[in-house]
Amino acid sequence: MKIGMSHGAGGEVMQNLISDIILKNIKNKRVNGGVGLDDLDDGASIPLGDLEIVLSTDGHTVDPLFFPGGDIGKLSIAGTVNDIAVMGAKPLAITNGMVIREGFPADDLETIVKSMDAVCQETGVSIITGDTKVMEQGKLDEMIITTTGIGVVNKGEIKRDSSLKVGDKIILSGSVGDHGMALMSYREGFGFDTDLQSDVAPIWEIVEKALAIGGVTSMKDPTRGGLANALNEIANKSGVGLLVEEDKIPLKEPVIAVSEMLGIDPYEVANEGKVIIGVEKELADETLSAIRKTRYGAQAQIIGEVTEDNHVILETSLGGKRILEAPIADPVPRVC
Amino acid sequence: MKIGMSHGAGGEVMQNLISDIILKNIKNKRVNGGVGLDDLDDGASIPLGDLEIVLSTDGHTVDPLFFPGGDIGKLSIAGTVNDIAVMGAKPLAITNGMVIREGFPADDLETIVKSMDAVCQETGVSIITGDTKVMEQGKLDEMIITTTGIGVVNKGEIKRDSSLKVGDKIILSGSVGDHGMALMSYREGFGFDTDLQSDVAPIWEIVEKALAIGGVTSMKDPTRGGLANALNEIANKSGVGLLVEEDKIPLKEPVIAVSEMLGIDPYEVANEGKVIIGVEKELADETLSAIRKTRYGAQAQIIGEVTEDNHVILETSLGGKRILEAPIADPVPRVC
Repeated sequence: MKIGMSHGAGGEVMQNLISDIILKNIKNKRVNGGVGLDDLDDGASIPLGDLEIVLSTDGHTVDPLFFPGGDIGKLSIAGTVNDIAVMGAKPLAITNGMVIREGFPADDLETIVKSMDAVCQETGVSIITGDTKVMEQGKLDEMIITTTGIGVVNKGEIKRDSSLKVGDKIILSGSVGDHGMALMSYREGFGFDTDLQSDVAPIWEIVEKALAIGGVTSMKDPTRGGLANALNEIANKSGVGLLVEEDKIPLKEPVIAVSEMLGIDPYEVANEGKVIIGVEKELADETLSAIRKTRYGAQAQIIGEVTEDNHVILETSLGGKRILEAPIADPVPRVC
Repeated sequence: MKIGMSHGAGGEVMQNLISDIILKNIKNKRVNGGVGLDDLDDGASIPLGDLEIVLSTDGHTVDPLFFPGGDIGKLSIAGTVNDIAVMGAKPLAITNGMVIREGFPADDLETIVKSMDAVCQETGVSIITGDTKVMEQGKLDEMIITTTGIGVVNKGEIKRDSSLKVGDKIILSGSVGDHGMALMSYREGFGFDTDLQSDVAPIWEIVEKALAIGGVTSMKDPTRGGLANALNEIANKSGVGLLVEEDKIPLKEPVIAVSEMLGIDPYEVANEGKVIIGVEKELADETLSAIRKTRYGAQAQIIGEVTEDNHVILETSLGGKRILEAPIADPVPRVC
């Protein structure tokens, strides 16, 4: 077997690769009984005293490096901050591993580093250590940034992607499909002259406000594989179903337009500044209000609720129902 | 300016890139007063309660992936374990970010993952989370593994690469030049049929035994830029000089042979299983004995001592002296 593009695109094909080749061959997969490698959560944890240290890592290969709404620098910090945040931990620091192609313009590198810095300042996160490598011309396409985040949460307060309870409400923090469609339309030659922008942003403020209300049961950021993948993953792992009101899912006009033009489902492409939050139903409205006051949460919606079923069901206002399946892979390659 | 190979090869050129483009543009560089980005130590730390969390990250681009004595999998885990160890912290866990070329053989990936697992089992470290990306044919040469390590040490017991004291003895845990020369000779077509093997190995056992004696002041693993770079870095940062007895530096016969054949200084090429340890002179002999009983420390030597000078001086048994300068860059590219 040879590795294919779909092995890195989220979804089922990637899960199989990870299970068959990676998990099977690694013996030590967790520390101190924390969240480990085979939990396949957004990150892992190490219980230490009264705290739980949360770690998450992501290699960023986005193509192109600069896209409408952001660049690989912003993406790498926001993406890692978000993976720490959805586990309920306060992000503290990032490590920055960069591999750069020989001949890469130093000015572009500086722009990218400044983008990283901006997200760090916005979220109060520090870049505390790093590593820089250079590969020869022809051996690497531009650059790869691998960021690892570390956060902390009080022991027992970590949020898992497997702890939805029947009756919980599902909050989505804003519109979906923006990142994947912005990348795709840019690659198709629409350039920067479009209303379509990536949503890349740190969602820690949203999570922090939601956690403060006290009803959050489970969270996930819908990146590779999009909303469809994230909803199915969080439902499957929790052993529950979801009933989602399709009309409540925010979709921007240009995302709808491009998705129809390219024949790509906006629910299956990556988002980089959104979060799905399961909340106890009694606290759902209060949590929604708190989220709507945040910088990136103004368009948040309660999109549905957790059921005893074992499918993710989309229901339209006219009463039509369909099963939302997890995609085999994200239809847009090199999306993050 | 464009990024050149020497910007990723350790040494002075890389330090300039890091200072001018990275450090200058990042505002938040440390957390809770711990070791931060601009300390340019082997890793960083975050003080939390009675503990200090130590983090280190490394992107592995070694060419070829499989070389005499090891492969990228062994290198990535050992390298990161070693960076945590030289800060005096017990390595606990690793995060594993892999970027793989489309078409990469799954069998090779499995071999690499098994190599990672073997070092983890040897050192008691766990791989607790990861990320997998795939890049198109022609956009990436084989694969890159970025590992981030996390370790813990009691607050105040962290070892810095800037804390050598005048009078300390310098212990080197074994022969130098093995890794760089093994890679170089393999690339020159000598293949696997040579006595020359990479020294890639985890040095945590050596460090653990040395720390238990109580006299360690400072440590560094001589990777990119070799022994010459590491000795100069640890001396400069500590504001001291070193007097090293050249005849005490262990060098293997095949390393000497290849270095003469290729005209490459064995002190300037990378090692991946060695450590330089500064020790209070009263405890130097006891520390050396403890190190010599470890799996990878049998050839350890006290190679010199810390002086009030501000150079690294090599002295031969005949009394000849010369200054050992830090190399501009590692003469062997893509060494780790």
